[in-house]
Amino acid sequence: MKVYDEATIIENYKMSHAVQDIKALLKELEHVTQTERLVISTGEGAQSMLYMPSIHLKKQLGMIKITSITPKNPAVNRPTTQGNIIITNIDTGEHVASLDGSYLTRLRTGALSAIATEYMSRQNAKTLGLIGTGGMAYEQFLGNMEARSIDHVILYNRTTDKAEQFKSKIHDQYPDLNITVVENVSDLVKQSDIINCQTQSTEAVFNADDVQKGTHINGIGSYRPDMREIDYQILPDASHVVFDDIEGVKVEAGEFIEANEKDIYPFENVYGDLKALVDTETIERSDDAITVFKSVGAAYFDLAVALGAYEQLQSNESKNT
Amino acid sequence: MKVYDEATIIENYKMSHAVQDIKALLKELEHVTQTERLVISTGEGAQSMLYMPSIHLKKQLGMIKITSITPKNPAVNRPTTQGNIIITNIDTGEHVASLDGSYLTRLRTGALSAIATEYMSRQNAKTLGLIGTGGMAYEQFLGNMEARSIDHVILYNRTTDKAEQFKSKIHDQYPDLNITVVENVSDLVKQSDIINCQTQSTEAVFNADDVQKGTHINGIGSYRPDMREIDYQILPDASHVVFDDIEGVKVEAGEFIEANEKDIYPFENVYGDLKALVDTETIERSDDAITVFKSVGAAYFDLAVALGAYEQLQSNESKNT
Repeated sequence: MKVYDEATIIENYKMSHAVQDIKALLKELEHVTQTERLVISTGEGAQSMLYMPSIHLKKQLGMIKITSITPKNPAVNRPTTQGNIIITNIDTGEHVASLDGSYLTRLRTGALSAIATEYMSRQNAKTLGLIGTGGMAYEQFLGNMEARSIDHVILYNRTTDKAEQFKSKIHDQYPDLNITVVENVSDLVKQSDIINCQTQSTEAVFNADDVQKGTHINGIGSYRPDMREIDYQILPDASHVVFDDIEGVKVEAGEFIEANEKDIYPFENVYGDLKALVDTETIERSDDAITVFKSVGAAYFDLAVALGAYEQLQSNESKNT
Repeated sequence: MKVYDEATIIENYKMSHAVQDIKALLKELEHVTQTERLVISTGEGAQSMLYMPSIHLKKQLGMIKITSITPKNPAVNRPTTQGNIIITNIDTGEHVASLDGSYLTRLRTGALSAIATEYMSRQNAKTLGLIGTGGMAYEQFLGNMEARSIDHVILYNRTTDKAEQFKSKIHDQYPDLNITVVENVSDLVKQSDIINCQTQSTEAVFNADDVQKGTHINGIGSYRPDMREIDYQILPDASHVVFDDIEGVKVEAGEFIEANEKDIYPFENVYGDLKALVDTETIERSDDAITVFKSVGAAYFDLAVALGAYEQLQSNESKNT
């Protein structure tokens, strides 16, 4: 079994690869099989182990993502979530590779936003607002940069210092980009063509009244029923709402569950899932329309990037020898 | 993540370790949590992936065994079953090791028979009959050797050549052992104090009428409802029948399911599981009694040897540095 650490995967497998591989997988999703996610509680609160297997029957390659959730970790400077992916060659039965799963999880989540932004936002969207500059933010930034010609990025974080640190990081890499840190989230919401939320919040992180016509919103936090992130009052005003995985959002995304229960936005109003979006390739939207994408993840998205990264790593290794 | 291949594990972790670690785990089973086994069909017939997670909450170590079943493999000289075990430190959330799972699976299955033979068979049992000399047989042999002072081993296999090959292998390692290959399974059954079955059979592999008083039987094949191995007509004559894991046997072991359905041996007559056996440490049996042990495996047995092997490997590494 080959072991690939995070640094090696980062070097070999980029956002553009992930976007391409997820689109390709969605077009042949009928060849993918998976089970429900297994969860084992291992301690107090949310401490747990998650197991997400998924198999690509046509490629005869399968994977399982094994994720530990350790809520006490940030206090000792370790990540809360740590993932590991094991790849099995189904044809021979061999377990061929172990891939660090943390970067790949962040990357695939960024790639999901990239696809949503590409298909749903205005073509001329130029200002990206990021709400939350924690562990998932960088790949969300990269995903949107991949999808649109962004020239202005606005950052908001509950702790402003962290937003400033994030600004320095991306400024070094994109010196021509206009980057603003705001202390009031309304300033971000009112100016952004694309609002991308990646928080651990248990209440809405912006006010729907501040959202301008023509805005596209991506929400990738709120992955538990007790969490809230997007202000669901915006949903009745949206021309298109897309979920990455409809069954997943229905049981995991707190604000969407509540909006459905209160009949503010019933699940049946959703346009479709990410596969529907990729299959149609575009949606009919006016420049004034508000669009919303919600992601909670699913094993087949992990499968797409795990197999993509594995194949890329194999290919780069054979080039180097 | 450290990767340990089969050869390294074989060198460092032996039958005596496995027996000790399984006994120890059974005595603190209340600290173990696990889920049902996940199974994904990946092709024709029995081709599939199996996922068995289990966590030792007190040790704060967890594992998942990932097993591929590839029925076409023997035709190209690859094993049907290939296992890989990932160990996670629950306290830190780190995925610390990958262990080849094939030897550990054979070893734990041998250790289960070792424990059954130790607690259930006559103290003076000297003749061991092995029915089936395939991939699981060697560790079954080792397990029984660990438990009793065996001086005569009788081998039966549907293809006699393979029994002869197995005889050569163990003769080289145990030159003083009397080893006989028989072509008629009755000859084995009539002479053996302990009969150990490890086959892929779909019908009983011996005739209950041939079983002598005082015999102990271990059955570790028949792990699917369509399989049969032990002649269930022996069950009403048995003083004690023990299952390694009662819930597992009830849904997996074909001949026991049929014996229960036909009311030949209802499940409620079982003495108990392996934990009950280890907790009581001995059973009251006469020298004339017939006893039966049936094993189908369970994730906590894999947990016991996976953590035992991991700790042993760590300890031996630190001694060598």
